Amino acid sequence: MANPTLRPSAGTADSLPGTPDFDTYPISESITAAKTDGAVVTVVWSDGVKSRYHALWLRENAADPATLNPLTRESTYDLAAAPEDLKASSVFVDATGALVVGFEPDGHETAFHPGWLRVHDYSNGPAGLVEPVGPQLWTAADLDEPPTFDGTAILTDDAVLDDWLTALARRGLARLRNVPAEPGMVGKVARRIGTIRDSNFGHVFDVRARPDPDSNANTALALAPHTDLPTREYQPGLQFLHCMENTTAGGKAVYVDGFAVAEKIRQSDTDAFDALTTIPWTYTNRARDTDYRWLSPAVVLNADGSYHEVRIGGFLRGPLAVSFDDVPRAYRALKLYSQIACEPALQQIFAYRIGDLVCFDNRRILHGREAFDAGGGARWLQGCYGEREELHSRLRILARNRRLQSAP
Amino acid sequence: MANPTLRPSAGTADSLPGTPDFDTYPISESITAAKTDGAVVTVVWSDGVKSRYHALWLRENAADPATLNPLTRESTYDLAAAPEDLKASSVFVDATGALVVGFEPDGHETAFHPGWLRVHDYSNGPAGLVEPVGPQLWTAADLDEPPTFDGTAILTDDAVLDDWLTALARRGLARLRNVPAEPGMVGKVARRIGTIRDSNFGHVFDVRARPDPDSNANTALALAPHTDLPTREYQPGLQFLHCMENTTAGGKAVYVDGFAVAEKIRQSDTDAFDALTTIPWTYTNRARDTDYRWLSPAVVLNADGSYHEVRIGGFLRGPLAVSFDDVPRAYRALKLYSQIACEPALQQIFAYRIGDLVCFDNRRILHGREAFDAGGGARWLQGCYGEREELHSRLRILARNRRLQSAP
Repeated sequence: MANPTLRPSAGTADSLPGTPDFDTYPISESITAAKTDGAVVTVVWSDGVKSRYHALWLRENAADPATLNPLTRESTYDLAAAPEDLKASSVFVDATGALVVGFEPDGHETAFHPGWLRVHDYSNGPAGLVEPVGPQLWTAADLDEPPTFDGTAILTDDAVLDDWLTALARRGLARLRNVPAEPGMVGKVARRIGTIRDSNFGHVFDVRARPDPDSNANTALALAPHTDLPTREYQPGLQFLHCMENTTAGGKAVYVDGFAVAEKIRQSDTDAFDALTTIPWTYTNRARDTDYRWLSPAVVLNADGSYHEVRIGGFLRGPLAVSFDDVPRAYRALKLYSQIACEPALQQIFAYRIGDLVCFDNRRILHGREAFDAGGGARWLQGCYGEREELHSRLRILARNRRLQSAP
Repeated sequence: MANPTLRPSAGTADSLPGTPDFDTYPISESITAAKTDGAVVTVVWSDGVKSRYHALWLRENAADPATLNPLTRESTYDLAAAPEDLKASSVFVDATGALVVGFEPDGHETAFHPGWLRVHDYSNGPAGLVEPVGPQLWTAADLDEPPTFDGTAILTDDAVLDDWLTALARRGLARLRNVPAEPGMVGKVARRIGTIRDSNFGHVFDVRARPDPDSNANTALALAPHTDLPTREYQPGLQFLHCMENTTAGGKAVYVDGFAVAEKIRQSDTDAFDALTTIPWTYTNRARDTDYRWLSPAVVLNADGSYHEVRIGGFLRGPLAVSFDDVPRAYRALKLYSQIACEPALQQIFAYRIGDLVCFDNRRILHGREAFDAGGGARWLQGCYGEREELHSRLRILARNRRLQSAP
């Protein structure tokens, strides 16, 4: 950070020494020609690819200390004050291979690392936010129990942590074995990923049959597969459940890939899929001191049609409040979804052992349980919530550290 | 809760004695006729209005103990197992005015409170999630400083708390005066609303110039109006800033209604408004141990065209990654937005006094500050985050308690 030059130094072509950036940008190709027409800079690469960059895009992405605070790595460029007639008035490739751009009328000159420029080229198809690990849907035929890892190793060994989290990102759930059955351990495991999400149920909560339950979760009732906190605008992205005690008859865990359930409907029943993804259900959770309400379709898609999240939870659904003609469509679709979610071919069903800790994507994986006999023993889980973005951040940091360690 | 009947009791017609529901449903009209064709129950009210309810909708909204757990107030009805040929086979109005519906083939019979039925009528236009207090946009001409309340009173007096929170929900920001300048007090105030949102900056965070800043916030730099944590999928809905010390020159607070900025563009520049609401910007926040990234348009609308949130923060914006032709449109629109956000006519600018605590909707209100002289004194704010839904929940609870207290 002391030396903020962006010019690649000889000999370490794929790192950015001195740049206020934690990432590295391999130089796969060099710049063979560059020109500017003022509004757009055109660069030709050694593999023949031509990339174009707008002047203002280049100006605000300058990584020199006049533009990017070298201490915080945050921009200080004021877009509101950018000259209306900003131009990239000159370009040349310097001896290190960097593209040097001069701007008018502000007279600024800055160098761009070729590896960084190539990675951020948006002129040959839009670049996007690519997650290192995408979801891979499953049924019981693919995966009849959660991918399982050692619960002690993940606390100290980044490679095992990475394996666990990669499986979690891909399959939406992963299990740890032999996590010490000590109160609060679930929080310690969650913090290996990132920040814990607090809720009105507490930072770390207990799931067990209680004489004064504030939720069906704290009874001995069976629970149909569901997501937690569907009454909130932002359902927790991760849920952690740690088995502290389990001597009751029954109470087996049930897990279902909520995206796989939706996919089955998408491929067989267009009207039901349309109803699931467009008609909002009402969720309400009224207690003595809180009153949460939210409306959302059961299945929410991303702009590209991929699955964003599911929101399923019969016991917290409030009265459906949509147009009269949508009511039968909405019920038919949600009933179909609920029935498929109960098909054994889609479910993982297993008993928790003491020390088991299952982490799952609560916006994708439905969880439930069989009823149990509260009089015949004890069943005690400790849980907490986290977010998908903490998982993605941790996976990026693990990947970054791996790259740094493997650098020459 | 001991008596779960839904029949209204004589003399307290607007309450639901014994019902597992915290709300009350005033009986404004009585049922004069009811019939069923099996699939749909039709009810005629004393004011001539006709309401229609589907059989399955009625069945799953039964509030009797066989359907709604009287301890948890959560449903135990299993939609997946609902009979395919479920019918509302009989209806009558009983002596208390309740609508009694019999179902086949499950043989269930249950009574519906007429006040509840009328409120949840979806057959005369869709019912929705109506917030008790909606946003009211402002400029400096309407509101040149935040609505202000006593910071001691809100801790003990629910009426003052309600006034403060109502102003907050409506205007997007409200100030408390004379909150004791003690570390952690900001958290105590936030918990009067609900759960605190934790982040990698900590449960309660400090804002002051530091030699090793992890954010431009912790320098003496001016900060352009922005939202916090735009790098997260779910930006915090509430932010609390409590002034602990302020003896520096400069550093005045700047607040802008981000919805009012968008509205000005909506009314004057259709192309810019379209670009703002559709083209995703990239936000990145890379630090030593975290790497958050998210993509979103600067302005997000609800399905009905009303404002959902804004996401603005120059210093955390990453390289724009959209199609080549969208780049100039995106920059023109965001630059226009940033310029309007800096117009004095839209801004509140004021100095924090010790003990001031400003709470604002971080997904609507942009906050910034003027530069200050870090050598000439101390400027210390303590802050924390919360969520909109905690505010809405608290407002509902305050309204519920008001109704209960005013009941005869």
